[in-house]
Amino acid sequence: MSLQISERGRQMPASPIRKLAPLADAAKKRGVRVLHLNIGQPDLETPAPMRRRLATAPSVLAYTPSGGTAECVASLQQYYRGHGLSLEANEIIVTTGGSEALLFALTACAGPGDEALVVEPFYTNYMAFATMAGVRLVPLRARAEDGFHLPPIEEWTRALTPRTRLVLLCNPNNPTGTVYRRDEVEAVAAFCRANGLFLVADEVYRELAYDGAKATSALDVEGAEELVVVTDSLSKRYSACGIRLGCLATRNRQVWDASLRMAQGRLSPPGLAQLVALGTSELGPDYEQELVKEYQRRRDVLYEGLSRLPGVFLLKPEGAFYFIARFPIGDSEDFASWLLSDFSHEGATVMVAPAPGFYATPGLGRDEVRIAYVLNEEDLEASVRVLAHALPAYRRARGLGAIEPARAAAEAR
Amino acid sequence: MSLQISERGRQMPASPIRKLAPLADAAKKRGVRVLHLNIGQPDLETPAPMRRRLATAPSVLAYTPSGGTAECVASLQQYYRGHGLSLEANEIIVTTGGSEALLFALTACAGPGDEALVVEPFYTNYMAFATMAGVRLVPLRARAEDGFHLPPIEEWTRALTPRTRLVLLCNPNNPTGTVYRRDEVEAVAAFCRANGLFLVADEVYRELAYDGAKATSALDVEGAEELVVVTDSLSKRYSACGIRLGCLATRNRQVWDASLRMAQGRLSPPGLAQLVALGTSELGPDYEQELVKEYQRRRDVLYEGLSRLPGVFLLKPEGAFYFIARFPIGDSEDFASWLLSDFSHEGATVMVAPAPGFYATPGLGRDEVRIAYVLNEEDLEASVRVLAHALPAYRRARGLGAIEPARAAAEAR
Repeated sequence: MSLQISERGRQMPASPIRKLAPLADAAKKRGVRVLHLNIGQPDLETPAPMRRRLATAPSVLAYTPSGGTAECVASLQQYYRGHGLSLEANEIIVTTGGSEALLFALTACAGPGDEALVVEPFYTNYMAFATMAGVRLVPLRARAEDGFHLPPIEEWTRALTPRTRLVLLCNPNNPTGTVYRRDEVEAVAAFCRANGLFLVADEVYRELAYDGAKATSALDVEGAEELVVVTDSLSKRYSACGIRLGCLATRNRQVWDASLRMAQGRLSPPGLAQLVALGTSELGPDYEQELVKEYQRRRDVLYEGLSRLPGVFLLKPEGAFYFIARFPIGDSEDFASWLLSDFSHEGATVMVAPAPGFYATPGLGRDEVRIAYVLNEEDLEASVRVLAHALPAYRRARGLGAIEPARAAAEAR
Repeated sequence: MSLQISERGRQMPASPIRKLAPLADAAKKRGVRVLHLNIGQPDLETPAPMRRRLATAPSVLAYTPSGGTAECVASLQQYYRGHGLSLEANEIIVTTGGSEALLFALTACAGPGDEALVVEPFYTNYMAFATMAGVRLVPLRARAEDGFHLPPIEEWTRALTPRTRLVLLCNPNNPTGTVYRRDEVEAVAAFCRANGLFLVADEVYRELAYDGAKATSALDVEGAEELVVVTDSLSKRYSACGIRLGCLATRNRQVWDASLRMAQGRLSPPGLAQLVALGTSELGPDYEQELVKEYQRRRDVLYEGLSRLPGVFLLKPEGAFYFIARFPIGDSEDFASWLLSDFSHEGATVMVAPAPGFYATPGLGRDEVRIAYVLNEEDLEASVRVLAHALPAYRRARGLGAIEPARAAAEAR
């Protein structure tokens, strides 16, 4: 007999960034500075009060309770209260990053062969968790022209099958930067309630809404208590991606209980990370405001810079620290490789994430890239200069001709 | 429509210890000292050179590479070399504890509905990972009279079906404390090779073999390179259960690659834990020897104490820090509850894990308990005194009558 790995093992998607990494390494070896617009790893320091907690580590680094220490759960309750969300301790489970919360939520709410509706483009790793859980992601298309806001409810209804079990919604959205309006979130919740679906809401970027807007948590939708499962993470809001700490929050007893049993299986979430999390209680009330201001400034730099470039199209991003931009290129995979292998300006180039990796539907996103703005303003300005020169150079290199001014003007609005 | 969680969500097993926890808490509230023989959380300090690494934490606690930092992978290679096992960097993936390594291994090697052969009694959380992965565990019974060594190969062959994909072997064994002989490990590997099965070997207790014995790693079996997937953890050998760091080690390219893609989905293993792991390189060559000596002393205290008690049966445990003992009780679940709720001696009682939670076959293990010896010698001696009084008292309380001296003598060997 031959030794074969499992079908799902074969189907596990590779990171769409992965194949670009060797090209980035090669560019760096050639002495080219690579400006990373491709990843959501903020350059900001993890707040010192959080890091200081490491000095309180005990001499036996022991298992913690499977659902998290009482202190860590309490600190999360305090955080949610600050956002007007009241959660009991037994409505929260501390997880190893938002990633594990997503895996628990999908596994608890759907079985092998079941379907989850998700708006595309979507966070590329949803596909990995869905493959592990054996759940099929059914995409509903959002469009750049609508600022990637939700498609009309009729489209959701058309996508329903007897296997549909849940809607997976990321708000504020990675990769589009869209912040769904309250009426959109309520409409999705009503759709879920009407059709017996769970609403799994990934709210990792909760506070990152700009221009005075505020993201609506699915936990804040009246009448949706039974169906909402929020997955959350400390990674982005505290620039602490590497500690791997997040949580699952739900008022649905069955989902909470099944998730706790999964949590017991893997014994406990990381203990040191839970210590670090306790430091969040020392952060002043202005911490989040300053964070939002910082990212809003960065968004402004990139949005204003890029939207001036001929042939580039994007509406003003509303939240998170990503957006999807349409570039005057035929093939974003080729463009991203070319940037790393064949181009530099002022000794620098940029690394972007080709958008096809964020779509489930083959062929979509070929003229789009995802941009993350987690660099400082100076580097973002340098990135705009690089792209301003790169776009026409790429079109020349690939024989695409000049960008028509009329089309450029129309697209740039 | 009604909102139902998934079938596997319902089937996720609860921790068999969980229902005893409130009873232990109540006993403590009554002022009774509870000696925990029920959990594998060592009381030893995490080595200081490891904890000191926390002072080197960077100011941005960033994602690490999905398969672990180069330094962390190198420290694991160094550890394996110390055990005569040569592994390349691209044969290791750093995971969030041994738990995640097990989930990756099961998911990569088997699909929903596929079967894994496992010797029972087995580590109870295997059931949780199997349920998450949709894999059915098919138990082969090991017996106390054989010191829980492996059943003959004919029984393995009889258990084969067209859905069998792998053997899951824990060596040294939790919960039985058995260390399989080299010929046993080689026979299982040959069985796997002959039948196109993976051999997933959980070797978390690798160094904990007593009386001069040495556990045989599946990585050290010639000709089995393609089929062996080792899951490992720093938890037990460095008394660092709470950091959640382990690894998957395999020379099978497909399994490694699928596991790395799963690792990419969840972004990275805990960064602080990887820092802590680097401190293992500072531990002297005698660290492991001292560790083995310490646990061997503890085993001796418990084994000598318990095997003298009338009606108690166990062969001398060979490794790890657990064993399964047969007690003269009708129902170990009831006995474990009774110890916490209705008994104390010298102001103390013991908490044990009823063995049925470690069997997949209903009805097995009812007169057995799993004992962990992770307490200091004084506490272990106190535990023996408690049990010496508890066993006859329990029999009286349940009307089981006195233990027949003949049976007792025969069983105690």
